[in-house]
Amino acid sequence: MSQHEGKTITCKAAVAWEAGKPLVIETVEVAPPQKGEVRVQIKYTGLCHTDAYTLSGSDPEGAFPAILGHEGSGVVESVGEGVDSVKAGDHVILLYTAECRECKFCKSGKTNLCGAVRATQGKGVMPDGTKRFTCKGKELFHFMGTSTFSQYTVVSQYSLVAIERKAPLDKCCLLGCGVTTGFGAATKTAKIEQGSNVAVFGIGCVGLGVIEGALFNKAGRVIAVDINDGKETWAKKFGATEFVNSAKLPEGKSIVDHLIEITDGGLDYTFDCTGNVNVMRAALESCHKGWGVSTIIGVAAAGQEISTRPFQLVTGRKWQGSAFGGVKGRSELPGMVDKYLKGEFKLDEYITHSTTLDKLNEGFDYMHQGECIRCVADMS
Amino acid sequence: MSQHEGKTITCKAAVAWEAGKPLVIETVEVAPPQKGEVRVQIKYTGLCHTDAYTLSGSDPEGAFPAILGHEGSGVVESVGEGVDSVKAGDHVILLYTAECRECKFCKSGKTNLCGAVRATQGKGVMPDGTKRFTCKGKELFHFMGTSTFSQYTVVSQYSLVAIERKAPLDKCCLLGCGVTTGFGAATKTAKIEQGSNVAVFGIGCVGLGVIEGALFNKAGRVIAVDINDGKETWAKKFGATEFVNSAKLPEGKSIVDHLIEITDGGLDYTFDCTGNVNVMRAALESCHKGWGVSTIIGVAAAGQEISTRPFQLVTGRKWQGSAFGGVKGRSELPGMVDKYLKGEFKLDEYITHSTTLDKLNEGFDYMHQGECIRCVADMS
Repeated sequence: MSQHEGKTITCKAAVAWEAGKPLVIETVEVAPPQKGEVRVQIKYTGLCHTDAYTLSGSDPEGAFPAILGHEGSGVVESVGEGVDSVKAGDHVILLYTAECRECKFCKSGKTNLCGAVRATQGKGVMPDGTKRFTCKGKELFHFMGTSTFSQYTVVSQYSLVAIERKAPLDKCCLLGCGVTTGFGAATKTAKIEQGSNVAVFGIGCVGLGVIEGALFNKAGRVIAVDINDGKETWAKKFGATEFVNSAKLPEGKSIVDHLIEITDGGLDYTFDCTGNVNVMRAALESCHKGWGVSTIIGVAAAGQEISTRPFQLVTGRKWQGSAFGGVKGRSELPGMVDKYLKGEFKLDEYITHSTTLDKLNEGFDYMHQGECIRCVADMS
Repeated sequence: MSQHEGKTITCKAAVAWEAGKPLVIETVEVAPPQKGEVRVQIKYTGLCHTDAYTLSGSDPEGAFPAILGHEGSGVVESVGEGVDSVKAGDHVILLYTAECRECKFCKSGKTNLCGAVRATQGKGVMPDGTKRFTCKGKELFHFMGTSTFSQYTVVSQYSLVAIERKAPLDKCCLLGCGVTTGFGAATKTAKIEQGSNVAVFGIGCVGLGVIEGALFNKAGRVIAVDINDGKETWAKKFGATEFVNSAKLPEGKSIVDHLIEITDGGLDYTFDCTGNVNVMRAALESCHKGWGVSTIIGVAAAGQEISTRPFQLVTGRKWQGSAFGGVKGRSELPGMVDKYLKGEFKLDEYITHSTTLDKLNEGFDYMHQGECIRCVADMS
């Protein structure tokens, strides 16, 4: 039993006081978990573009002051009333896509988008409408139901999953977002078939996850597309068979024309991992007539829209999206951890940079450089 | 054996001399079928909006002068060299979506869009690049590989299918386009599941076909949406459980909001049968988060685009299209004829008007009136 059980914990956290400003390392108070909640000591957290997007102020739903972060791993410190899915001492991955197993969505068998904590999560509060973080007398908003940029956080019991104790937390935190999102989009949402031709637009952590998923499903050609030549080495390290720099095509040739030409009609599966709506359109239109499926993974800026000629769909292309790779976190992440431990897929190789809680802002600087795939912060 | 075999046939046809002008009933010469071709005596033809669209001049690919029409039934008069799939005397339905069974598309098992005659069909010529129709010394273009507005036509052996002799040709012509397009979109493209909630936008022949298909697949609620109150009776006759006039909602309430409200979150399957890109968007956005699938069937005017926020797809909706209901004409229409003969689905009920070749222009007038579902012309 934790020495702090039932008491407020004082610890360090990176606080986002306002949009567009760097994070500030502060001493914060973290209230004990209430009914159905769990307090977790965060050990490691990845830094993701979604954190940077909200911090920039571009996210219209971003509420400040807040504790950001959503790609975390840690150890359960204590649990609130009625929680029996995890216990103090469990090693866990936090889940920004919750799984309650009881709502209409969870029971549909058709989606991983749980409805249980969605509304309050979007508002930056716990399911009962209140907050657990205080700093200098001010309450801080939660973020994505996880708030991993703190040494301790409180989450819904539906927003975390226990994993094997022997799994390294400094690697497995990546299963909380980027890698699972890409890998799942390829294997679960698109269900790539053996021998299929695939194109992946945007070679960051998510794009590499898609490439890994495509290889896992025994795809044929896997064409990586980016505007940064430096991504060619990365893409091929993860198993891409080809790389195309879409910014360096001959004058007047579009990436769509180029891909259709080199694949004799287009791709069986394409993926947008950029969040750019023009790239999303190119990804759809690069699909083969009759059966090509394009999956949007990237998150577009507020208010932006995708468009195409309906003829693209009437002639057999499908347009879909994927959130957290279509993966149900509590049910499926333990199996992904197993696969990782058995060497069936990579995790370590995504981590190019490391930092600490005190230097979290430097982590964001790394992220904005092309050569960073993932930066993981040690929160101890 | 036909008395005309190997010789040119002189007969009557409705000629579209130029865009935007009425059809003119003319005497035309129809050359004998060449290698891989079949000459058919057209008995009946439906009139479809696609014919009207091309005749109006809005179709940038429309080539004049031409013989339009694509929803036809008839009897094989003679066959060219190498044709063994049909023989003189066979009762047939013409197919604007060909099926060669040998191309990449036909062999994929994933689409009904055959590639064999696509390029030449789009140009209004036979696969060898020439034409078979002449009128007053001028060659006439073919249309959609079928040109059913003539007492005799010549088509590729891949563009027709023999059906049972006891099947009434005056009804079965509708399987060449509208009914199959709607019924197939519901049963083959969307594969509606038992108990699903469905919305159908646009209650013409195709929309009624979707309703029939939804019922055939044992859908739960089937909501018909149109801006013409007169369509309520039609929709319910075909099995719709509800009708919504989207032009008569309370001030400020969109059809999307209304449908999401009355279905507790949205539809499992929606279908656009209007060709209006704004309706296509509404159909997508009326889908249930997590799993709703929207199928575009209507053909939009040239240059028009569909758009939405990518968030709609990332949160689990899928956007797809359907051409000829995903049905492979040569392989699957005989089975549909069987279903019709067994009373498993309606055909007769779609026919609200009839006309003759001499009065084909009147048929178009009927079509532009709201109360016409399908007008069938007797070509004798």
